[in-house]
Amino acid sequence: MPIIRIETWKGTTLDKKRDLVESLTREACRILGCTPEVVSVIIDEVDKENWGAAGELCSERFPDK
Amino acid sequence: MPIIRIETWKGTTLDKKRDLVESLTREACRILGCTPEVVSVIIDEVDKENWGAAGELCSERFPDK
Amino acid sequence: MPIIRIETWKGTTLDKKRDLVESLTREACRILGCTPEVVSVIIDEVDKENWGAAGELCSERFPDK
Amino acid sequence: MPIIRIETWKGTTLDKKRDLVESLTREACRILGCTPEVVSVIIDEVDKENWGAAGELCSERFPDK
Amino acid sequence: MPIIRIETWKGTTLDKKRDLVESLTREACRILGCTPEVVSVIIDEVDKENWGAAGELCSERFPDK
Amino acid sequence: MPIIRIETWKGTTLDKKRDLVESLTREACRILGCTPEVVSVIIDEVDKENWGAAGELCSERFPDK
Repeated sequence: MPIIRIETWKGTTLDKKRDLVESLTREACRILGCTPEVVSVIIDEVDKENWGAAGELCSERFPDK
Repeated sequence: MPIIRIETWKGTTLDKKRDLVESLTREACRILGCTPEVVSVIIDEVDKENWGAAGELCSERFPDK
Repeated sequence: MPIIRIETWKGTTLDKKRDLVESLTREACRILGCTPEVVSVIIDEVDKENWGAAGELCSERFPDK
Repeated sequence: MPIIRIETWKGTTLDKKRDLVESLTREACRILGCTPEVVSVIIDEVDKENWGAAGELCSERFPDK
Repeated sequence: MPIIRIETWKGTTLDKKRDLVESLTREACRILGCTPEVVSVIIDEVDKENWGAAGELCSERFPDK
Repeated sequence: MPIIRIETWKGTTLDKKRDLVESLTREACRILGCTPEVVSVIIDEVDKENWGAAGELCSERFPDK
């Protein structure tokens, strides 16, 4: 009954979310030998100003173009 | 000093949140033998389009009526 | 499809774990209007030397008697 | 800089862990358009007696054969 | 490659977020002997009505002034 | 009432754990304006074979010397 959680920057499109859920579920089932029904996936979209890398806010280190 | 975290779909009413905090705290105290003062509860409301079940987005598998 | 996670100090007995799973599941179902089948509970037992409170390790602030 | 976390029952072999890390990283990179270097994967192996499903401990609901 | 996560009430200013990321990264590097480049920090701002303390919602126990 | 969680490789000494708890608590209090009594710190030591970076297990990418 795996639970998969993926944290990524805010702004993921619905198509990418659908692809993440499908693909991560499929890989987990293949590897762990379970059925899709028992897999949960949670996508946690984090604002870049709430994510720090190398001691800096990602909103400043990697500003949106 | 238990920390309880509950992830559920977005859209929980304030009354239900209050009930969750009261009830989960009370049960944790009864079972673990601690006082309410040391229990934290965090309610993490997840958008259905960020939650996958059985390889599908919950927003599509369980659309709002 | 709530997911409940409870972090507590290591050393919870099997009876208390069973009680936690039963009770937290029951309360979540009652409040959120779901069936037990869709509720997951994860008990995360944390060593007291890996838990800090008030700036001190719990293994030193609250030593086992 | 996605962080992927997968919680599953204890007892995953090293080969399966390697496959999980490779596959989940590859899918995340393909979908989110990032390089493997910025992806972290954490495998959290949970004892079946610390995981509850449908109000029961998994160690009792799904005993090892 | 430490990952630090801090949950706090919603309403942290950008200056405080920058200070959190800088300070927690610096301390982690000093203690664990790593470079800032491998440290991630995630600030999780939780609404006070989603946080319970002592069995009460923080929005009611600690209302904004 | 901040909750700080730090995931790092297994093998942190007790002295470093004590320093982490003291230092992260102190910085959080200074920045967020709270007292140490309301800060929790959890150190989550992850086995290198359960941590993936750049698509590889850290136990293989960064073997112990």
